[in-house]
Amino acid sequence: MIEVLRLSHRIGRDPRLSTHVILTARAFGAEKVYYSGDHDKSLEDSTDKIVSNFGGPFEIEYVKNPLKLIDDKKKKGFQIVHLTMYGKNFEKLKLKKKVLVVVGSEKVEKEFYEICENISVGNQPHSEVAALGVLLYKFFGVKKKFMNPKIIIEGLEKGKKITKI
Amino acid sequence: MIEVLRLSHRIGRDPRLSTHVILTARAFGAEKVYYSGDHDKSLEDSTDKIVSNFGGPFEIEYVKNPLKLIDDKKKKGFQIVHLTMYGKNFEKLKLKKKVLVVVGSEKVEKEFYEICENISVGNQPHSEVAALGVLLYKFFGVKKKFMNPKIIIEGLEKGKKITKI
Repeated sequence: MIEVLRLSHRIGRDPRLSTHVILTARAFGAEKVYYSGDHDKSLEDSTDKIVSNFGGPFEIEYVKNPLKLIDDKKKKGFQIVHLTMYGKNFEKLKLKKKVLVVVGSEKVEKEFYEICENISVGNQPHSEVAALGVLLYKFFGVKKKFMNPKIIIEGLEKGKKITKI
Repeated sequence: MIEVLRLSHRIGRDPRLSTHVILTARAFGAEKVYYSGDHDKSLEDSTDKIVSNFGGPFEIEYVKNPLKLIDDKKKKGFQIVHLTMYGKNFEKLKLKKKVLVVVGSEKVEKEFYEICENISVGNQPHSEVAALGVLLYKFFGVKKKFMNPKIIIEGLEKGKKITKI
């Protein structure tokens, strides 16, 4: 079970980046994204619309206190992996069955570094979106099957093949 | 040799997403990013600052006519790979030595589909940033060595190790 926690979402500044985090999480097999920061109804609506069109299961939930969420998840046996350019090499990581991947924004408070396993996809300035994608791809691959889609796209070298149900 | 072409950058709407494309390209071994759309001096300056601090070689160049760039690159023996949710599975791709990866924004004109190899990282709504990261990671891995950095970060499980030169 893979879940993702997106920290410090800001309406106005981050709408598209948070959307990219959400789409990436879903495409590589996460079934839930939590986000903290600003409560953003339009982010939730656009996520629900994607799920309604392209299938699930996948849900989004706002959390006011992300440290408490991490604490609760730990008690439920989740491994907490925080993606940061300062962390140890993700290729050495061993993943458990239940994983919460924590994805920061520009500044992440010290407390998160203290309670998470800090993992990096390269120790360079990076995109948290790409780092999340590469981590999930390496461990879980591209998700192939979604439930109850209204739209199915099949890959072609030329042209587009779109089935509407 | 890996290069990336970011289509239709828009000042105001895309500054952070284009930055994410650029950081991702650099972290996985690309040595150059071209971008079309709005000419954006601040995007170029922030890229140059990253390279000055964390090392290169890596450069950014604005192009007015991306179709002409693709044509020129083809003549120089580049394989042109366009990332799109409608393309064929990237895991079946065979890469040549010189590759230009084309990364779209929301709408990509039909002409690009006609002259590129259209490749997908999953046929789901996706982040072009994550798709670029996963494609480059699969074929080239995380870039380990950068030339002339002023700042070097070493990954640790706890804490930060930053060397300034």
